Amino acid sequence: MSMNNLGIVKRNIVRADEAAVAKLSRFGVASIHEAMGRVGLMKPYMRPIYTGANVCGTAVTVLVHPGDNWMLHVAAEQLRPGDVAVVACTTDNEDGMFGDLLATSFRACGGLGLVIDAGVRDVKDLTAMQFPVFSRAISAKGTVKATLGSVNVPVVCAGALVNPGDVVVADDDGVVVVPAAVARQAADAAEAREANEADKRAKLAAGVLGLDMYKMREALEKAGLKYVD
Amino acid sequence: MSMNNLGIVKRNIVRADEAAVAKLSRFGVASIHEAMGRVGLMKPYMRPIYTGANVCGTAVTVLVHPGDNWMLHVAAEQLRPGDVAVVACTTDNEDGMFGDLLATSFRACGGLGLVIDAGVRDVKDLTAMQFPVFSRAISAKGTVKATLGSVNVPVVCAGALVNPGDVVVADDDGVVVVPAAVARQAADAAEAREANEADKRAKLAAGVLGLDMYKMREALEKAGLKYVD
Amino acid sequence: MSMNNLGIVKRNIVRADEAAVAKLSRFGVASIHEAMGRVGLMKPYMRPIYTGANVCGTAVTVLVHPGDNWMLHVAAEQLRPGDVAVVACTTDNEDGMFGDLLATSFRACGGLGLVIDAGVRDVKDLTAMQFPVFSRAISAKGTVKATLGSVNVPVVCAGALVNPGDVVVADDDGVVVVPAAVARQAADAAEAREANEADKRAKLAAGVLGLDMYKMREALEKAGLKYVD
Amino acid sequence: MSMNNLGIVKRNIVRADEAAVAKLSRFGVASIHEAMGRVGLMKPYMRPIYTGANVCGTAVTVLVHPGDNWMLHVAAEQLRPGDVAVVACTTDNEDGMFGDLLATSFRACGGLGLVIDAGVRDVKDLTAMQFPVFSRAISAKGTVKATLGSVNVPVVCAGALVNPGDVVVADDDGVVVVPAAVARQAADAAEAREANEADKRAKLAAGVLGLDMYKMREALEKAGLKYVD
Amino acid sequence: MSMNNLGIVKRNIVRADEAAVAKLSRFGVASIHEAMGRVGLMKPYMRPIYTGANVCGTAVTVLVHPGDNWMLHVAAEQLRPGDVAVVACTTDNEDGMFGDLLATSFRACGGLGLVIDAGVRDVKDLTAMQFPVFSRAISAKGTVKATLGSVNVPVVCAGALVNPGDVVVADDDGVVVVPAAVARQAADAAEAREANEADKRAKLAAGVLGLDMYKMREALEKAGLKYVD
Amino acid sequence: MSMNNLGIVKRNIVRADEAAVAKLSRFGVASIHEAMGRVGLMKPYMRPIYTGANVCGTAVTVLVHPGDNWMLHVAAEQLRPGDVAVVACTTDNEDGMFGDLLATSFRACGGLGLVIDAGVRDVKDLTAMQFPVFSRAISAKGTVKATLGSVNVPVVCAGALVNPGDVVVADDDGVVVVPAAVARQAADAAEAREANEADKRAKLAAGVLGLDMYKMREALEKAGLKYVD
Repeated sequence: MSMNNLGIVKRNIVRADEAAVAKLSRFGVASIHEAMGRVGLMKPYMRPIYTGANVCGTAVTVLVHPGDNWMLHVAAEQLRPGDVAVVACTTDNEDGMFGDLLATSFRACGGLGLVIDAGVRDVKDLTAMQFPVFSRAISAKGTVKATLGSVNVPVVCAGALVNPGDVVVADDDGVVVVPAAVARQAADAAEAREANEADKRAKLAAGVLGLDMYKMREALEKAGLKYVD
Repeated sequence: MSMNNLGIVKRNIVRADEAAVAKLSRFGVASIHEAMGRVGLMKPYMRPIYTGANVCGTAVTVLVHPGDNWMLHVAAEQLRPGDVAVVACTTDNEDGMFGDLLATSFRACGGLGLVIDAGVRDVKDLTAMQFPVFSRAISAKGTVKATLGSVNVPVVCAGALVNPGDVVVADDDGVVVVPAAVARQAADAAEAREANEADKRAKLAAGVLGLDMYKMREALEKAGLKYVD
Repeated sequence: MSMNNLGIVKRNIVRADEAAVAKLSRFGVASIHEAMGRVGLMKPYMRPIYTGANVCGTAVTVLVHPGDNWMLHVAAEQLRPGDVAVVACTTDNEDGMFGDLLATSFRACGGLGLVIDAGVRDVKDLTAMQFPVFSRAISAKGTVKATLGSVNVPVVCAGALVNPGDVVVADDDGVVVVPAAVARQAADAAEAREANEADKRAKLAAGVLGLDMYKMREALEKAGLKYVD
Repeated sequence: MSMNNLGIVKRNIVRADEAAVAKLSRFGVASIHEAMGRVGLMKPYMRPIYTGANVCGTAVTVLVHPGDNWMLHVAAEQLRPGDVAVVACTTDNEDGMFGDLLATSFRACGGLGLVIDAGVRDVKDLTAMQFPVFSRAISAKGTVKATLGSVNVPVVCAGALVNPGDVVVADDDGVVVVPAAVARQAADAAEAREANEADKRAKLAAGVLGLDMYKMREALEKAGLKYVD
Repeated sequence: MSMNNLGIVKRNIVRADEAAVAKLSRFGVASIHEAMGRVGLMKPYMRPIYTGANVCGTAVTVLVHPGDNWMLHVAAEQLRPGDVAVVACTTDNEDGMFGDLLATSFRACGGLGLVIDAGVRDVKDLTAMQFPVFSRAISAKGTVKATLGSVNVPVVCAGALVNPGDVVVADDDGVVVVPAAVARQAADAAEAREANEADKRAKLAAGVLGLDMYKMREALEKAGLKYVD
Repeated sequence: MSMNNLGIVKRNIVRADEAAVAKLSRFGVASIHEAMGRVGLMKPYMRPIYTGANVCGTAVTVLVHPGDNWMLHVAAEQLRPGDVAVVACTTDNEDGMFGDLLATSFRACGGLGLVIDAGVRDVKDLTAMQFPVFSRAISAKGTVKATLGSVNVPVVCAGALVNPGDVVVADDDGVVVVPAAVARQAADAAEAREANEADKRAKLAAGVLGLDMYKMREALEKAGLKYVD
């Protein structure tokens, strides 16, 4: 048994069910995260590089070293239509590992977008291409191609465990990871939740208070809340 | 005398004079802050969630615990037309305590906007609603409703003391707090300052140097400034 | 010999060759940084205050103290058409040292933009003016005019050494400094690189992999990369 | 009414009851914070400059500007035996505002220690003097004496509101502020809590589980906790 | 299949082989990390609360919510002699979730130490007890007991995936996680590496250069290194 | 002319005058920084790895890439008795680039200590060796040897420009850089300042206020300071 997964490219990965991915793509990150029981989020420093960027697809995971984007070129070949590259780095690094050339290549391979716990550049071009990228930083800093990482091994990206084939959904609110095995279940739960929300929204807009709609008054009183004048 | 203000909702608060609030709403945060003598600003990590967001109103203060947005529901009932909810947290926390449902409720109650030293979510919807929010983070992370905080007690929000009823003004430059008792005075001072600025701007645009307009040359020389070639 | 450069304004500085500056203005920050051999970048916390801001010009350097913008007024007089003010601070500070009045003055003097390792304010006005500013923060915090710094001395701004007269190029990807002496050389190298990129982009868009285009497969294999199923 | 408290030195302040301060000095910061209902803490970035530093005294508050320690000299004169200087800054700043000379002066005036939301220096000497200092940073950076702040006005220091005369207690766990009016009450509550803790410690050491000692099992079960094998 | 692991306590976990743990305890974190191929480290913000703290044991994992330490009490019951509690939090939080009472309880249950991606308090007492703790912060902030997390589920702690039963080794250099399945292999590799280091150290002390000992000169020359005078 | 200094080792550098270095070694970082006119400090995140670490010597500069310590081995050969290695990195990185083996080698070559804008490891051993190290982080993370940097080129380390041969002085208060050309002058000024301080300390200890000793009262009054009761 190997002590690490470095220097490996796994070619055949089990991707989440296509229909489940399609269904998940209709819901927001917050809804999916709630529907799963409030788990799966990456840390909030992961931000879209342009307003409105969003993506939903199956993860091709990439593990890189600080200042080295060699494995992103290796990863391109593993992308299938509907995939999102998810890049983790062995230590905190903000270098610009990805730009419009790699985006062009990823898109040509069917890649839908990128989630990277490092930096990216060519932001203007990526925006013009409407290639959705979620990153921890924007940086023009160039990188080397010198040290092996891996493709399609389990990675921890921005605090979240991502296995190859998991569903990754990203929008203005952040990035959530849905394990492939529960993708359908999560999609169904998100759908139920969203329907539910429409009704709540109407009531709240009509002036009904959450205190009453969610029946919180008794619990608040029991917890000891005091109203004073 | 109580050692803390936890578990309390104060219903009757003295809000700043309405005319003063209306007048303050005509000026920018930087002008008001300067007019008051350079005080009252929240820390600059408080940012609008969309470009152009701005708000001016009277503070309904909320004290919450990390990862717990229960008191925001309690606060909704205390909002009056013209109020801005100001949320402080007992420790640093970036969870998404507020989204489009609470915004809908706040607006239905007359709330104009939100200033929160924590995270928010549903950014796309909040932007579509043009509901102004200033926060320390954007995060999809859901919160619980388990522990009492308070509404309308003095709070420290992003480094600034806020008393219920104070005026809170927020725009692209940040957030400033104007104590209710000096709201009129601050508005008058901001008005004077802004008039003053128009004149300065014209001169500077015409090529007059600040060195001359502000008569700085003598003070600079006295301080020892040396020009070398 | 003086132990420091404080309290000094150098009036006659050697600016980078005008044609080289003009040529550099046609290329992006990432390209220029790469063309120079991956050097000269400021740290990635330096961000444009509005999307699309960009500038290319010769540096008039300014050294200020925290919370004190006196030297920016002194610097205005030293600006010549085509200059960019580059402001370094003796310690980390995010105060709002620059706003629309100074921008008006800088522009009247021929200044093209500002790069400042501190805060700025009046963001809405600066955006309306389309005056490009790259800063570490946005803050309404006012500053004093009490302590001498310097103008046109070598400074370290956001981690990069900047000498007066150097070329400063800034866009969505960050800020790069090109020493005056190598401006032409850097422009030529950037031009070569960019031409090169157009060709690469076309190939990648057509589905050619970077692995093949850059002939990486042999090196990867030699490094020990293993493909598994 | 003044819009700010700048440029003011308040000479006569009401200090917390001496006996209450003496009693508080027997308890730890965590105990006092808990006894007060979990309020009053400064942010955890405030750390002692040497292991074991601790202090308990009445606050003489100081408001300074970034990079400017003028008001610390003004504050020295206001110190009475048993006081602790509490320094807040108008913006985040880490400059070395305090060193062994000021410590010598503070001690000569009866000052017991320093809590400063900025930097300090001469750490070796301060340690040798066993002069307790809690700060956000250690920095050799010198400061100017150019701009007025205030002494003995209410300040927000590291996220906590401090009024002159309040009790400030600091140890390895951080810094807590006890309002003068509740000092005795807080001391009594802390005493009760600490007695309580000794008993709990003995039980836990004997192998009794907190689950049983605090009778948590029922609440956990009700909340839905599941034990699986 | 459950979409999350919340509200679960797994009682029977497979702990790493005892002999392997004992062997690993003889080596430093850096050596083990290197021996495993440079993987398994937590982020460097995890620091010991006192100089010289170190621990090596099998992980009982705990997942908590911000500001809520309920599950640490639940975890105590699951500790077996030789275990180390590893606490992850659903979002970044620095509250003081652990102090001398819990340490007393953990030790009574056989717990050897704590690794927590949050804050701790009672640092003086913990040091006196010589109970090794590695945390992201020291904070006196008290926590509630209101929301269920889990015990002995896989967690991401400070960027590292930890499964219950894995070996956790912590010393002045940080914290490394060794999967139970490779504990013996990692121990052997660390042993080989350490032996190797003794020999290297002697040569280097005698003045042999790493350039020669590691035979780097040829590779450096090939990479293009130029020596100039 | 080269556009960058990468891939270069400069062998013959002009070191600061030996007597000046010896004299500087008698003074603290804060004193030297003040004596030079408050310049030359590295950022305060640079901290000693053990209490009491201090060093004064001539800089051998090293420029490395993130996660790559190859050039530290190259640098060892360039160290002469009395040198301090000063390591800058092309981007922010906290990896453990240096440990007890390199320290052994550096010491064998005459190196006195290390100042590194990155991470180090083997802290226990380095402390036992009393090898003074000032770093931005402690991290066990291993590094590769793959990409060329440089030795003895000008670098920006933790915000300070360092030329090879400059004097670097580090103690509990931080790190200051003294350009070789002004080393003697700085030493003399520091000596004058320190003598001066002894006298001040005695007066302050005797109860003389800084307000009087520094004759600040008039300036404070002129600035508008008001004493109120």
